Amino acid sequence: MTPTITAFADSPDRGRGLARDMRVRWALEEVGQPSEVRLLSFEELKAPAHRALHPFGQIPTWEEEGLVLFESGAIVLHIAGRHRGLLPEDARARSRAICWMFAALNTVEPPIVERSLATILERDEPWFAARLTMLDGRVRQRLGELSRRLGNAEWLDGAFSAGDLLMATVLARLEGSGLLGEYPNLAAYLLRARARPAYQRAYAAQFAVFLRSRSAKDPAEN
Amino acid sequence: MTPTITAFADSPDRGRGLARDMRVRWALEEVGQPSEVRLLSFEELKAPAHRALHPFGQIPTWEEEGLVLFESGAIVLHIAGRHRGLLPEDARARSRAICWMFAALNTVEPPIVERSLATILERDEPWFAARLTMLDGRVRQRLGELSRRLGNAEWLDGAFSAGDLLMATVLARLEGSGLLGEYPNLAAYLLRARARPAYQRAYAAQFAVFLRSRSAKDPAEN
Repeated sequence: MTPTITAFADSPDRGRGLARDMRVRWALEEVGQPSEVRLLSFEELKAPAHRALHPFGQIPTWEEEGLVLFESGAIVLHIAGRHRGLLPEDARARSRAICWMFAALNTVEPPIVERSLATILERDEPWFAARLTMLDGRVRQRLGELSRRLGNAEWLDGAFSAGDLLMATVLARLEGSGLLGEYPNLAAYLLRARARPAYQRAYAAQFAVFLRSRSAKDPAEN
Repeated sequence: MTPTITAFADSPDRGRGLARDMRVRWALEEVGQPSEVRLLSFEELKAPAHRALHPFGQIPTWEEEGLVLFESGAIVLHIAGRHRGLLPEDARARSRAICWMFAALNTVEPPIVERSLATILERDEPWFAARLTMLDGRVRQRLGELSRRLGNAEWLDGAFSAGDLLMATVLARLEGSGLLGEYPNLAAYLLRARARPAYQRAYAAQFAVFLRSRSAKDPAEN
């Protein structure tokens, strides 16, 4: 049975592939698993029908026969556990790759999301400049540590894994901040990740959703 | 071979069990796996020897023959994968429990940590009161969603799992904020989790570290 995932009908990033469905789309492309995508409006996200699938009213979700999952990290791990290509076969290398999945989502992502939130929610507050300096410092600390660990390696621990996939999607959120450019090996790492054919296919699929939503809103633009 | 974990020699929470080694100690007690604990000073945390184990210079780490892990979530998952008692045997229920692990660390914890950080780093800033109101709102949103999903159930999805273990350690960080008391079923859930004998043993072990560190600093206090 083909699994169904959910994504924004109208992504706030204007097709840049920064929403969390991208992680699942990319993982599915890496392992060659087809899926259906169900698009949700912001109203539908918060409605009881979706809350029954996702207690926090977010995307993505995962539905397959008899199983509903939420949390992009858990869905990627679920996919990685059922197909080859996203986690090493060796048990120890597999545990290490899973470390990087958690590191991406629990150590590197929080200050990056916090910085993004501040630029949206606190932009007009009198404290914004001072807060941004503080937040940039927290992001730089994690980027510096990650950059030192990555060094000249291609991926974080041996072959490309679900840990690299999640880390790349986290770093992608820094686009436009100028911060990633201060760490050339991390900027190159992100480019390398995005050059993967599976990423390209996933990106194109979510960009097609953006084009359709733009066309629906303003047919003259197309 | 007995695994070795790391913890703070001198925990900033004064023995309340809020540091992330508590997750690993608790998980080990749930499955009955003995371990060694290596205590680190703040200087040792940031030193190259520890950075070689943990790129972000944090605790806990996990060392067993031929394997070094970091990230408390990944370590708990590693333990859960090798012993019975922290994840269901059924594959679907197992994937759902892992959802709750990621939800605890990637959706519920970030606003709670952000609030804690603000109360430490921004307490004297002119914007603190306005920020705290905003942060309390973000925490309440997640607690409200979690509370609605938990309802009258004992645990988040069937039997106690590593998802509940991580969620309880996340909610514990709200102690003293007054926020958890607004959601009686979550407050009761945390109490239920902490009443588990495995939690009690883990708590006692980390509290003994605090008592020893206090005694070393000021023998007259004991």
